Amino acid sequence: MKSKRTKPASEVLLYADSESSADMLYFGEVFVPDPFIAFSCEGKRVAVVSQLEFGRVRAESRFDEVLSLEELARESDRKHGYPAGLILHLAKKFRIRRFRVAADFPCGLAFKLKEAGLKFDIEEGALFPERELKSDEEAKLIREGNMASSAGFRVVEKILRESEIRKGYLYHGGRRLTSEQVQEAIAVACLKRGAVAANTIVAGGDQACDPHCRGTGPLRANELIIVDIFPRVAKSGYHGDMTRTYLKGRATEAQKALYNTVFEAEQNSLAEHRSGKSASRIYKDVVKFFNEKGYTTRRDNGVPVGFIHGLGHGLGLAVHEPPRVNPSGSRLRKGQVITVEPGLYYPGLGGVRVEDVIRVTTGKPEMLSSHPYRWQIR
Amino acid sequence: MKSKRTKPASEVLLYADSESSADMLYFGEVFVPDPFIAFSCEGKRVAVVSQLEFGRVRAESRFDEVLSLEELARESDRKHGYPAGLILHLAKKFRIRRFRVAADFPCGLAFKLKEAGLKFDIEEGALFPERELKSDEEAKLIREGNMASSAGFRVVEKILRESEIRKGYLYHGGRRLTSEQVQEAIAVACLKRGAVAANTIVAGGDQACDPHCRGTGPLRANELIIVDIFPRVAKSGYHGDMTRTYLKGRATEAQKALYNTVFEAEQNSLAEHRSGKSASRIYKDVVKFFNEKGYTTRRDNGVPVGFIHGLGHGLGLAVHEPPRVNPSGSRLRKGQVITVEPGLYYPGLGGVRVEDVIRVTTGKPEMLSSHPYRWQIR
Repeated sequence: MKSKRTKPASEVLLYADSESSADMLYFGEVFVPDPFIAFSCEGKRVAVVSQLEFGRVRAESRFDEVLSLEELARESDRKHGYPAGLILHLAKKFRIRRFRVAADFPCGLAFKLKEAGLKFDIEEGALFPERELKSDEEAKLIREGNMASSAGFRVVEKILRESEIRKGYLYHGGRRLTSEQVQEAIAVACLKRGAVAANTIVAGGDQACDPHCRGTGPLRANELIIVDIFPRVAKSGYHGDMTRTYLKGRATEAQKALYNTVFEAEQNSLAEHRSGKSASRIYKDVVKFFNEKGYTTRRDNGVPVGFIHGLGHGLGLAVHEPPRVNPSGSRLRKGQVITVEPGLYYPGLGGVRVEDVIRVTTGKPEMLSSHPYRWQIR
Repeated sequence: MKSKRTKPASEVLLYADSESSADMLYFGEVFVPDPFIAFSCEGKRVAVVSQLEFGRVRAESRFDEVLSLEELARESDRKHGYPAGLILHLAKKFRIRRFRVAADFPCGLAFKLKEAGLKFDIEEGALFPERELKSDEEAKLIREGNMASSAGFRVVEKILRESEIRKGYLYHGGRRLTSEQVQEAIAVACLKRGAVAANTIVAGGDQACDPHCRGTGPLRANELIIVDIFPRVAKSGYHGDMTRTYLKGRATEAQKALYNTVFEAEQNSLAEHRSGKSASRIYKDVVKFFNEKGYTTRRDNGVPVGFIHGLGHGLGLAVHEPPRVNPSGSRLRKGQVITVEPGLYYPGLGGVRVEDVIRVTTGKPEMLSSHPYRWQIR
């Protein structure tokens, strides 16, 4: 049951839906809402789908062969139930002696197949290592995702510009402006670009110091507001992922210094991303830069402050995918699409994060995101 | 490794994020975007999360105990890596001799834990069978989801009323009306109710005869248009799921007969849902009703036509969850929340589906969805 990366000849086997499984979507390039069987066989991609999906999958997917679940079910082994019995039948029918499955393959099915004598290897790394290296077409689709993010920022900037400040709070259209309202406006802007922006972060003040807090309630003047938009383009399934930080009103010197430091770190770091360079080195250079500027990472009263997350992650059909740019990151490779998102967080002062997306080349990285960095809005 | 449903004393173990895993969201009632470890121990719910999530999970979730990943990692077994080593450590620390995992627990982790000597059972059915029976609070949250669906239908009806017919096509705001435009308008309406409507179906004519086709391109006059909206309320994670069928222009007698038959089937069937009644019987009664009306289910030139899907499914944190109301459905139980969605599909004539949601009681079902059935729009 060990991973055997040296033996790529074994055929892949998947059992998943392609809305939640990025591997399945990558393999078949078609959305199917319920789990189904797919596998490779001598270079061909084969799917088994129900009559409900049959015509659509045959017309739209990149599967070379689409089999009818109902027809196969008739000739398959009833003893092991569905889908195990059908997989055993397919292994025989297609003379496949050994499958390769991802580590997230469902264990109930895996144990059943193993008990029935099917041989398979569990891939410790990626089932499709090539998913990490993006083609020009994929880069274009990710850029589309980032164009949706950018449309979201434009709406945020418009709302902040139009907002009035009363007693320290922001008012828009006569109402107190909340994180939720801004999140909704962003989602609408993304929808108009064909993308679904779920879990968008619009977090002001100390809320922004918890990088996974989405932000709730009224937004205040003169405080840093982190806006992180990672929409999924509905048609392709590829994501954008960008962050900008704003402040409505007047920034203090401390806020300006914090913003400028993060911004400088981001711009420097973007340029450092090139093939062959160690991701952990790029991460550590940012930590060093922050330390030199006096922004240390530590615990204050048990709360982590400073640069408290990784520098970046792969982006594609999943929002978070390999590689990781953090203390244990490995060497970058040409074609990887990576977010670059340094941030600094100090409760009391606030948080700043700036995030763009690049594709790794042998030289200057290819920018896959573009949006101005205006952050102070009067 | 057999399922032992008679031994519920063993503790549950999960490793998943709670955005895609309904079980994890049910267990902890908090959204965490990356996979984490959670388990039960003598009636307590325990989670292990990173410093990024710690404060929020402790404040917002229903976990009784929240442990810091970073602190535990220091004292845990490095040999087996993360998360396997940490789970082995936790089993010792909490003196848990046996875990129970869901069938979709990741197999890579399961095989590692088994090799290291951890004992666990794989649940063949639901990890939390009680998830199938909804509380009053859950029923309320599902009703909120359906209120978002209903807001979507109102927008569709408004657009269809405002549309003009030119040369057989619908025009709205001077532009040819497409499925995509209507899907976007529905998504915006759902967002305003705090719900994300992904994969909404707006499918006209023969497109609607493929029940998983979302619909694309221009919408035509005088053809049946199926609109199926299943939004997820962002705050709670619970879904709505409703379908209405429309026609802009003038319906033929055949279209009217098709619509009226499906509508009558739905209304009759809603009333048949009560605890103790066999789901397969309810399904078969609908098939019988359709056959008696002359609407048979068969293959025409290899294409399945008629009533080509199940009658309903459980609804909650997942759009599709147990129970199923189909030929192999079992007896209904009080508290189950189920969609009732008969449909008839005949290419050339078109498709009709009408869907509502009920909660099973000992008597008359409790309606959790409400929206008029106006379908012909002039």
